[in-house]
Amino acid sequence: MQKPRIAFIGTGVMGRSMAGHILKAGYSLHVYNRTASKAQPLVDAGAQWHNSFAEAAQAADVVITMLGFPADVEAGYLSQDGIIAHSRPGTLLIDMTTSSPVLAERIAQAAAARGLQALDAPVSGGDIGAREAKLVIMVGGQSDDYERALPLFQLMGQNIARLGPAGSGQHCKLANQIAGAVGMLAWCEALAYALKAGLDPSAAQACIAGGAAGSWAMTNLAPRALSGNFAPGFFVKHMLKDIRIALDSAAQMGLDLPGMKQAQQQYERLVNLELQDCGTQVLYRLYTEY
Amino acid sequence: MQKPRIAFIGTGVMGRSMAGHILKAGYSLHVYNRTASKAQPLVDAGAQWHNSFAEAAQAADVVITMLGFPADVEAGYLSQDGIIAHSRPGTLLIDMTTSSPVLAERIAQAAAARGLQALDAPVSGGDIGAREAKLVIMVGGQSDDYERALPLFQLMGQNIARLGPAGSGQHCKLANQIAGAVGMLAWCEALAYALKAGLDPSAAQACIAGGAAGSWAMTNLAPRALSGNFAPGFFVKHMLKDIRIALDSAAQMGLDLPGMKQAQQQYERLVNLELQDCGTQVLYRLYTEY
Repeated sequence: MQKPRIAFIGTGVMGRSMAGHILKAGYSLHVYNRTASKAQPLVDAGAQWHNSFAEAAQAADVVITMLGFPADVEAGYLSQDGIIAHSRPGTLLIDMTTSSPVLAERIAQAAAARGLQALDAPVSGGDIGAREAKLVIMVGGQSDDYERALPLFQLMGQNIARLGPAGSGQHCKLANQIAGAVGMLAWCEALAYALKAGLDPSAAQACIAGGAAGSWAMTNLAPRALSGNFAPGFFVKHMLKDIRIALDSAAQMGLDLPGMKQAQQQYERLVNLELQDCGTQVLYRLYTEY
Repeated sequence: MQKPRIAFIGTGVMGRSMAGHILKAGYSLHVYNRTASKAQPLVDAGAQWHNSFAEAAQAADVVITMLGFPADVEAGYLSQDGIIAHSRPGTLLIDMTTSSPVLAERIAQAAAARGLQALDAPVSGGDIGAREAKLVIMVGGQSDDYERALPLFQLMGQNIARLGPAGSGQHCKLANQIAGAVGMLAWCEALAYALKAGLDPSAAQACIAGGAAGSWAMTNLAPRALSGNFAPGFFVKHMLKDIRIALDSAAQMGLDLPGMKQAQQQYERLVNLELQDCGTQVLYRLYTEY
């Protein structure tokens, strides 16, 4: 069986690694990115460059997108120049951006109206997970479309699950971001308390991180913050984007998330302090310096 | 060298296991507990029963306490009938209750005035950690007293650290409880969102728990909540006690902990719903049922 031709649109830090795995597996890869230079390593490795969403989509049997904000996703899929208007019937569309569940449903409906199939498949695991093909991939959409996409997902991730119909992948990713955002408050408040009480916060971290109050973030991000390393793994501005999407979605469902609202306030304070390009662990400074 | 005689006061779920390790190691063990029946297994195994704090303290070179609330600690140590008034000079006093840092400092001062030494040494790890001698023990006090106590701590725990002067052990435990209490909001809000969004919350938990938004609690407590098991591991009423001590202490230091204040509100709601004798994972029900 001929391998499907893949368009990969959005070749930033995450997308470049993910697309690279597909290329290495022997697929014909077609790429487009707003900033062309970021796609150059893939082109050098054999991918074909296109000049627009539409051009890339026309060349492929499966279109994968890894974009920035929901507005980028909306424009990329739903505009006159976009993927849905220009894909050939039968094309499978997979948006792996963390985006809005409602938008994912709109895309799936618009796709179906043109004889296309669509999945939402956001990921967690960050740049390292993307590079090592160990992403968690959370998928929403119809199960036969999921089966069709699975060989591609298996090139990029390890923990892959279909959660339900269109939008369900985005909902699961937002649940993940809720746990992540509120969990940041947990270790930051704990270690700020330790510092204020006169303890060595690294000694406190060593007592706490391995026990029942421990978390991935306390084990991996707290030591960065305590050593003054605020470089991004995950940007403050992206965390705040995801917090807003999650709280909007929760509000639409009538669900109150008081811990998450508190996280939003704290991350908005960080942006007001112009720390939006730091890693999320800079939240620790909000308690200890401001 | 003759082994010191040990008094162990407070032989509830935790204390009984901890005292049992000391007895098994060949120490002469002296016990007292408000409810005598709970000390019976230790007496059956060779411990000597006493009828009061004072009587037990008089019989020992080292007094260890594992009590309930700070008020119990205050009465046990500082009252006329208490440990400090009745211990022989040179006795080492070790309070392993989770209690107030300020009270720990008061006890250390009162002890020093009578020629006694005192450590605060609260633990984490729960009933299983106590049973398996794998507790984390967080110690405050002078370093020579810590060295004297270390062989006993090593019978009860694995991760043992002196954090600083009197009160520092309690401060570290409160930092632990801050991380724990706020961390409960993280997974409860995440999985309540998943449920409300129409996902199977267990499927969402499987996607999230192993990644960057994961935590011990999400791995270990969330599955209990999702299967309807609200039996205590750690009681809601004890969590609320610790939250109040931590927030009092933070307020005295001028530290604002908005996430922790939110956790207090949620746990107070649970107590108002008469769920105080459930395990802390019942917090999930607050989001999904009330």
